[in-house]
Amino acid sequence: MIDRLLRMMDRLVSPATVSAHCDLPCGVYDPAKARIEAQSVKACMEKHNGSDDHDFKARSITIKEERADLVKHHLWVLWTDYFKPEHLEAHPQLHELFWKATKTAGESKKTNDEAVGQRLLDEIDQIADVFWATKK
Amino acid sequence: MIDRLLRMMDRLVSPATVSAHCDLPCGVYDPAKARIEAQSVKACMEKHNGSDDHDFKARSITIKEERADLVKHHLWVLWTDYFKPEHLEAHPQLHELFWKATKTAGESKKTNDEAVGQRLLDEIDQIADVFWATKK
Amino acid sequence: MIDRLLRMMDRLVSPATVSAHCDLPCGVYDPAKARIEAQSVKACMEKHNGSDDHDFKARSITIKEERADLVKHHLWVLWTDYFKPEHLEAHPQLHELFWKATKTAGESKKTNDEAVGQRLLDEIDQIADVFWATKK
Amino acid sequence: MIDRLLRMMDRLVSPATVSAHCDLPCGVYDPAKARIEAQSVKACMEKHNGSDDHDFKARSITIKEERADLVKHHLWVLWTDYFKPEHLEAHPQLHELFWKATKTAGESKKTNDEAVGQRLLDEIDQIADVFWATKK
Amino acid sequence: MIDRLLRMMDRLVSPATVSAHCDLPCGVYDPAKARIEAQSVKACMEKHNGSDDHDFKARSITIKEERADLVKHHLWVLWTDYFKPEHLEAHPQLHELFWKATKTAGESKKTNDEAVGQRLLDEIDQIADVFWATKK
Amino acid sequence: MIDRLLRMMDRLVSPATVSAHCDLPCGVYDPAKARIEAQSVKACMEKHNGSDDHDFKARSITIKEERADLVKHHLWVLWTDYFKPEHLEAHPQLHELFWKATKTAGESKKTNDEAVGQRLLDEIDQIADVFWATKK
Repeated sequence: MIDRLLRMMDRLVSPATVSAHCDLPCGVYDPAKARIEAQSVKACMEKHNGSDDHDFKARSITIKEERADLVKHHLWVLWTDYFKPEHLEAHPQLHELFWKATKTAGESKKTNDEAVGQRLLDEIDQIADVFWATKK
Repeated sequence: MIDRLLRMMDRLVSPATVSAHCDLPCGVYDPAKARIEAQSVKACMEKHNGSDDHDFKARSITIKEERADLVKHHLWVLWTDYFKPEHLEAHPQLHELFWKATKTAGESKKTNDEAVGQRLLDEIDQIADVFWATKK
Repeated sequence: MIDRLLRMMDRLVSPATVSAHCDLPCGVYDPAKARIEAQSVKACMEKHNGSDDHDFKARSITIKEERADLVKHHLWVLWTDYFKPEHLEAHPQLHELFWKATKTAGESKKTNDEAVGQRLLDEIDQIADVFWATKK
Repeated sequence: MIDRLLRMMDRLVSPATVSAHCDLPCGVYDPAKARIEAQSVKACMEKHNGSDDHDFKARSITIKEERADLVKHHLWVLWTDYFKPEHLEAHPQLHELFWKATKTAGESKKTNDEAVGQRLLDEIDQIADVFWATKK
Repeated sequence: MIDRLLRMMDRLVSPATVSAHCDLPCGVYDPAKARIEAQSVKACMEKHNGSDDHDFKARSITIKEERADLVKHHLWVLWTDYFKPEHLEAHPQLHELFWKATKTAGESKKTNDEAVGQRLLDEIDQIADVFWATKK
Repeated sequence: MIDRLLRMMDRLVSPATVSAHCDLPCGVYDPAKARIEAQSVKACMEKHNGSDDHDFKARSITIKEERADLVKHHLWVLWTDYFKPEHLEAHPQLHELFWKATKTAGESKKTNDEAVGQRLLDEIDQIADVFWATKK
């Protein structure tokens, strides 16, 4: 746990941890982009489930759909653009991790089951663990 | 070859070959979407290489960048949304095919080497072969 | 019919049939882009009509709206960017065909009547017939 | 001229002149949307031609490309969504006006000839004249 | 009132009143962009309130959401890109005006109260008054 | 410094620190979104300045333009959607901070001066400090 906290701190304060998220590539990648949107996905589910205003519930579903799309996009970018063959050799589960997490993001559009939202966050965290491991 | 032609005909004329490309899912997927954009990517390279108008060359690079982004997007959607675990069992090379093809799309932004554009088309065709095999 | 099948095959396998869909122009146009999205529009209607899950029905309407927008966009691009005055002389019904088809795409947002979805597909097929006639 | 000024004033101050620009339809259409973007297109040309900063010139071309795309989009929406068959009967030149204006918008991407930018503005003004005539 | 009408006329017919709306900057800004979208927001509310078609009401809410987003975007661009420190000195209420108007645009997503739509229009008009004052 | 590190850790590990970034509102806001894009802006400048490949330099400018647009968007959302009147009372410099930072983002499109990229990061950090102060 201490180790994980240290990695998180490290990631935010050290310019050395910065790498790329466009195809220049500019060298800036960060799983936080996908995670923030996934937090929104789960929050939309919670707001939906806690309301009985019909219009509000409908809006929460539409907004969740957009946020889940962003999760998928940010994960796909990370998978294709950041990870290199040598990372895959060291972490052979990578393809499967991304496939499952993006599928969960798709699944989160079809349900308001908060457990699916939580699973999405957990799967992103597993990806983040691999990501930060490659940064050491 | 005959087999491939028949599959292509089949795909275009038979409503039975139609399946899904959004997360409804609506049931409509087609690797043609990625391929058409990849044709543009390669065409932009050819137009670039055949011109000596500086502004035209610059525009071709910017437009190629956008088209390559669409290739990536359409491939990612196909990978995550259409393919199911049973497809992966029958075609274990799927993850690698998509990873390589989307990486080639990224590479095509950085170069005007038409061989890269052609490789992108070939890799999409390999994906299309698997796709149509799962449709039989 | 044979003729149409051959044209379709030809279009997919021959690099010579390739022309343009951006304003470079890159030389790649294809009515298939509009048709694939129109298939989604109709599929969304069918999924909507076959379900009694309220949230699912709402999502199908929102997604149909986006897909219909893409149909309009792809048709407009084809009309303005691909077709030239000489095509219009040979096919004077062109403006009317595009106007009606894009209006039908708009109409398909407002209804779940599958006949409207089918009409949209038929009108795109009429446009495709003219398109492929100009390619001979 | 007085007549045109009065129409312009009228359009801005009277809620009665308001009609629709989405497919709800919400009832709000206005050729000003296309015109404002076309002003940007022409201004980008002028800025480009008046500068010798290479990077600035490149940016002006890229931005002009985006603005010209918006011009096309706003014109297409007006053509398909606002105009009705009865308008076309009274103004049979409508299809041709829109086809030419959107083609000019495409042409404005490929050149920095300010005369093309001015022609785009003039063609939009012709469309606006028909538009406001249908509003009387 | 006469003064305001004259300013409006002036703005539309005089090329001298034209300034910038991208970061080139191209020199074309116009509060009309935000206002037209805000008219749609209010019109969506009215259409919603005047209908008892459930699907239509749902679509009006989704479309209103998109239009309100455009209002926010156009206002933010005006605030950051057009206005300069000297304008702020002369009109110290500027920050507050924009903050309130963009917040009202956000609020208009959550309600179908037409008074909120009208307030949004009024706040944009206040911004437009400052804008045209800086153009004199 | 310790205090800042603790705040950062806290923010990442505690679900209690999560709040909203859409207009639902879903309750998830995070200045990290703007900061990550701003890191890309600065990285594009550095890549540009360190290269003598003409095409690469042109691409870096175009990509920087898009990333700077995202910075502006994320900051605007934070300003309008997250901050409330009571925050403004406690931090009266808020409007000015956001206005300057978004203007710097615009300025970063027009230059490859890395000092401007750094200033953008610093101004976002000042905003983040206020943001996390309101979270305590």
